[in-house]
Amino acid sequence: MTELFDVVDVIRTKRDGHVLSLDEINWVIDAYTRGVVGEEQMAALAMAIFLRGMNPDEISQWTQAMIDSGETMDFSALPRPTADKHSTGGVGDKITLPLAPLVAAFDVAVPQLSGRGLGHTGGTLDKLESIPGWQASISNEHIMHMLGEGAGAVICAAGAGLAPADKKLYALRDITSTVDCVPLIASSIMSKKIAEGTGSLVLDVKVGSGAFMKDLGKARELAQTMVNIGASHKLHTVALLTDMSTPLGNMVGNALEVRESVEVLAGGGPADVVELTLALAQEMLAAAGKPDEDIEAALQDGRAMDRWNQMIREQGGDPTAPLPVAAHTHQVVAEADGYLTELDALSVGVASWRLGAGRAAAGEAVQAEAGIELHAKIGDPVRKGQPLMTLHTQTPERFERALESLVGGYTIGESAPTPRESVVFERLATDF
Amino acid sequence: MTELFDVVDVIRTKRDGHVLSLDEINWVIDAYTRGVVGEEQMAALAMAIFLRGMNPDEISQWTQAMIDSGETMDFSALPRPTADKHSTGGVGDKITLPLAPLVAAFDVAVPQLSGRGLGHTGGTLDKLESIPGWQASISNEHIMHMLGEGAGAVICAAGAGLAPADKKLYALRDITSTVDCVPLIASSIMSKKIAEGTGSLVLDVKVGSGAFMKDLGKARELAQTMVNIGASHKLHTVALLTDMSTPLGNMVGNALEVRESVEVLAGGGPADVVELTLALAQEMLAAAGKPDEDIEAALQDGRAMDRWNQMIREQGGDPTAPLPVAAHTHQVVAEADGYLTELDALSVGVASWRLGAGRAAAGEAVQAEAGIELHAKIGDPVRKGQPLMTLHTQTPERFERALESLVGGYTIGESAPTPRESVVFERLATDF
Repeated sequence: MTELFDVVDVIRTKRDGHVLSLDEINWVIDAYTRGVVGEEQMAALAMAIFLRGMNPDEISQWTQAMIDSGETMDFSALPRPTADKHSTGGVGDKITLPLAPLVAAFDVAVPQLSGRGLGHTGGTLDKLESIPGWQASISNEHIMHMLGEGAGAVICAAGAGLAPADKKLYALRDITSTVDCVPLIASSIMSKKIAEGTGSLVLDVKVGSGAFMKDLGKARELAQTMVNIGASHKLHTVALLTDMSTPLGNMVGNALEVRESVEVLAGGGPADVVELTLALAQEMLAAAGKPDEDIEAALQDGRAMDRWNQMIREQGGDPTAPLPVAAHTHQVVAEADGYLTELDALSVGVASWRLGAGRAAAGEAVQAEAGIELHAKIGDPVRKGQPLMTLHTQTPERFERALESLVGGYTIGESAPTPRESVVFERLATDF
Repeated sequence: MTELFDVVDVIRTKRDGHVLSLDEINWVIDAYTRGVVGEEQMAALAMAIFLRGMNPDEISQWTQAMIDSGETMDFSALPRPTADKHSTGGVGDKITLPLAPLVAAFDVAVPQLSGRGLGHTGGTLDKLESIPGWQASISNEHIMHMLGEGAGAVICAAGAGLAPADKKLYALRDITSTVDCVPLIASSIMSKKIAEGTGSLVLDVKVGSGAFMKDLGKARELAQTMVNIGASHKLHTVALLTDMSTPLGNMVGNALEVRESVEVLAGGGPADVVELTLALAQEMLAAAGKPDEDIEAALQDGRAMDRWNQMIREQGGDPTAPLPVAAHTHQVVAEADGYLTELDALSVGVASWRLGAGRAAAGEAVQAEAGIELHAKIGDPVRKGQPLMTLHTQTPERFERALESLVGGYTIGESAPTPRESVVFERLATDF
């Protein structure tokens, strides 16, 4: 078979800062998926894209070509509208867990097809796997059943058939220093979400030390790029820029975060987790045509908890079973009286990861029990000797390196810092 | 074995426009040669270098690391000084053939270890292989014998042991659009030449349509970069920038160029070929400590021809055997009276390549007989109907595409153009 293009020409075009044609993009993604374009050639192209960028049309087409590389799902036959949410990942970001059953309580289907976590932010599937019996991998038929007649929410592993070009490219970018590139990040996220066939999408774009995007400008660029892709694909898309300079909630780690999520579903939980859960639920319900619900009520009256219990059971889990608890703990105490003025998300995230909550390489096991429990948040008054946090692990030899990463990760000052107004900084959305 | 660096960090450093440390460069080239750094990772790094550049220290170290990746030769025990020459390649550039025996006639050893030609400029080994019996591949011992007690000049295939990192990287650059990059071109050329162990080096950097470098600025940058590498390696290096806007001499093709080279060695030949041969011989002899020889005399009195005959015989060739002649020829005639005002090197080079003189892919056979004989050069008066050139090939179906590439490749004007003053535009050299 004669190929339509020569990949050396396509790479050169981008290398020299020119725009790739839609046909070139379609061809190169398809040829890469088929193995006709080699990994070394895609690596060179990815680096050229990293340094030269892509315009909105190129990004949109790049996304479409990755969608076209595999199968797509279709939820349009469901009796309920669908709304999906994606977070760019943060420390203590367990929001998906209470959010999905909460939105489902209003008869909006929530398909949450996730990947595995890598690095310090952890993964949603890893968190849920700390629930005895719970299965991440379920069939497409079972997903449709859960969304249509079951709990209405499903959090599961994305099948290998969705956007296979993105899977190949994601693995390649990881080993070639081409991860941190807005066009490639945005098209990767959106290709998977659009291939999943959701009716609307709410994006939680994290900003700060614990997030992929460290500053607001870059996070805004990523959010706007994803909203643009949504617009060009006629997908109602909303992006919230939210604070990830400090951990979300009081629990960081797999079973620990499930515990906190269940607190939120029971009507309690930390204020920041509740605020963000409600803000995202509001956006998802509005996008699904239900803008005027009393969402908080569903947390107080048990409707969200009922959906959670059903969702966990429908994937083989026992929501009443006790969660695993770490065999070893270590307390970090305050060195002085004062106020906690800083608590750095990245330091806490890396410490939790080093305790065993995250993996260093794909395929590694994680400890369900490992993580960090925060006893004080920014603004809290503290007393010398008072516990600031408790470190949890199954493997106590990990404490030392975890503690190292906490050095300089928090500050006790003499006066209380100005309270944060909201976890949500900004909102961007498609205009339809 | 634990690696000293993480290649992902090294790629990121260059991607972000920072300087690679000498240790990083040594490590990444060595790890690439060992296969620890993958092709896709080196492709990303090569593209980052392409777009971000390298400073003189980085380029010098990159060159050294490629030299260190394999074996080196040492000519210091020879009874004669050594001088080497490298051309960046041009249309009709057969200069190495008369030059090597000419310099050897003055008791300066000339080791010419060459690669195979790819593309429209042809290769020195391909040209010599049109001589019946001549062998490109000879042992290191035989090379040393020829240089020490034999003809004093040797033109042969470079062994696989010299700069293996460069060989891998060269093949990778070819398929990833990272060829046309001064730091990578300069380090590739210089690593091979320094590994060969020559005592001095003269570079013929071609400028113009038929050359790799189309304009003087870029050619000057390449020449200066190579001279800088030579300086940092204490190798006396001279670069001449020479004209490649129009073919060199009257013959383009393998056996045809050997024929013209023998004419030069017999004291005749086209003026431009003689001029450049003498200019390069002067530089090589001066670099070897013999600046005051009457070089032209050695062409007139047969000393250079004697060395040629000896050199060809010592590699199994018969210098008296008739050269192969094409079975099919086609003449291109002048459409009008006037002067030949333009004769484009690239057009003639591509036509010759299409006639069978060059290869489209590595490993392909070339036709010894194919090529183009020029009957008029820029500035010559021509008459309508007069032959301008004769196309030669063994496969007459190739005429059509060869003729296509000549369309617009020459111009007949009403008045004579201003004559070119010299084939040599500029000279750069190390200051020792």
